[in-house]
Amino acid sequence: MTTAQLIEQIRHKNSFLCIGLDTDLTKIPQHLLNSEDPIFEFNKAIIDATHDLAVCYKPNTAFYEAHGLKGWTALQKTIEYLNTNYPEIFTIADAKRGDIGNTSAMYAKAFFEDLHFDSVTVAPYMGKDSVEPFLAFENKHTILLALTSNEGANDFQTLLSNGKELYQNVIETSKTWKNSDRLMYVVGATKPTYFKEIRKIIPDSFLLVPGVGAQGGSLSEVCQHGLNDSVGLLINSSRGIIYASDGLDFATKAREEALKVQVEMGTILQQHFGN
Amino acid sequence: MTTAQLIEQIRHKNSFLCIGLDTDLTKIPQHLLNSEDPIFEFNKAIIDATHDLAVCYKPNTAFYEAHGLKGWTALQKTIEYLNTNYPEIFTIADAKRGDIGNTSAMYAKAFFEDLHFDSVTVAPYMGKDSVEPFLAFENKHTILLALTSNEGANDFQTLLSNGKELYQNVIETSKTWKNSDRLMYVVGATKPTYFKEIRKIIPDSFLLVPGVGAQGGSLSEVCQHGLNDSVGLLINSSRGIIYASDGLDFATKAREEALKVQVEMGTILQQHFGN
Repeated sequence: MTTAQLIEQIRHKNSFLCIGLDTDLTKIPQHLLNSEDPIFEFNKAIIDATHDLAVCYKPNTAFYEAHGLKGWTALQKTIEYLNTNYPEIFTIADAKRGDIGNTSAMYAKAFFEDLHFDSVTVAPYMGKDSVEPFLAFENKHTILLALTSNEGANDFQTLLSNGKELYQNVIETSKTWKNSDRLMYVVGATKPTYFKEIRKIIPDSFLLVPGVGAQGGSLSEVCQHGLNDSVGLLINSSRGIIYASDGLDFATKAREEALKVQVEMGTILQQHFGN
Repeated sequence: MTTAQLIEQIRHKNSFLCIGLDTDLTKIPQHLLNSEDPIFEFNKAIIDATHDLAVCYKPNTAFYEAHGLKGWTALQKTIEYLNTNYPEIFTIADAKRGDIGNTSAMYAKAFFEDLHFDSVTVAPYMGKDSVEPFLAFENKHTILLALTSNEGANDFQTLLSNGKELYQNVIETSKTWKNSDRLMYVVGATKPTYFKEIRKIIPDSFLLVPGVGAQGGSLSEVCQHGLNDSVGLLINSSRGIIYASDGLDFATKAREEALKVQVEMGTILQQHFGN
């Protein structure tokens, strides 16, 4: 998917919501556990109930790998379902991969060619040659971890070197890599004041923002500093939407929560763009 | 597996060789491609031919994920084969995972409980709560990326903060984490002079050392600065051993290459321990 197509979808739906499919068998409604593939059945119901309110779905691979072959099958069925039924949706494999060059190329193949995701999250620790193999794919997007939403983000990501924090060094250096226009960045909503500085370095890039909702980040604060002329934000919510209810009404309740976020986003977009 | 069992195996075999199972369908002998599961058949033959010379096998998950379900099946069969036939072998899932707490716990479950690996490689960028869920498993080992062997290692891992390079900050901080005695570290053989400094911070930890062979690192230089009283090194070789031949004799040739390394290791151990 091109960035222009993603922006078009955002403006059409008045939404920049990404729904995280962190599907956990201990949290999904009990009645689904009798089905042949509970993870896929849950994802399918959530997607069907929310696809007009969200522009993006993000399965986190950990929740699938934890179930071995069955989990990998559920991941494959989920991405196939999305690509077949809702081809306008932007898909993210939240995999946080990264390895030496020839190995990263294998991961890129796995997520872009085998599973047909539009994008994948990648860890920056191993540097240029661990990320460039992902960037080689046209109309695919590599979402680099910059400043994450968890407590441990402060262990290393904010260490100062040459007057800049590590996450700033990561972003600045990444701009020099080949095909860096295919980069997006993970920036946690739990650190809204950081968005101002980040927008000085990458005014035009899309930012994937976890941490709104369950982790305590504020949508309006993030938007205040993070929005750009192309919107430029994908706000992720996982638990707050997909686990809104664990009863028979789980999909309806998930839609209600997604709608609340979408309405708030619609208002913000109207204020920002004045239309 | 306990660390004591690993050390016992090393002393028994006079080897601290880890063989990387980076099994690539474009590089394995053509005649294997007709079998039902070429990746597993290749791994099985390599393992059978070298198990008395190596103490450790390390499949890199990228090479398996690139083939989707078939690849994941081959990975599962490989680790089952190792655990069933050679239970004394230390196994590493070279996965370089890392995510927020509840998600890292899922990855830990995938590699330690579902696949039964002894250890897994983990990326440090997201800090403490991304690594501690792995450390919670008794008699399992978490191998943290410190200083990798690739060119991009110099992009961020050597950035100076408070007079220390990032990889040093990673190692020092990781020592304060819960169950940090279950940590090992990845340190590339392409940077042998760094081992002296690293041994000052972690004299007792095991180091997994990629980069000997194809990437140009020297075994004797690494050992000079890296060996400790418990040996404390696992030297990985992948391509140099497993792709020694692409003919019918591939397993025999792999054994010959592994034997060369083991003999060199035996000599080094004799010099170091004097027995």
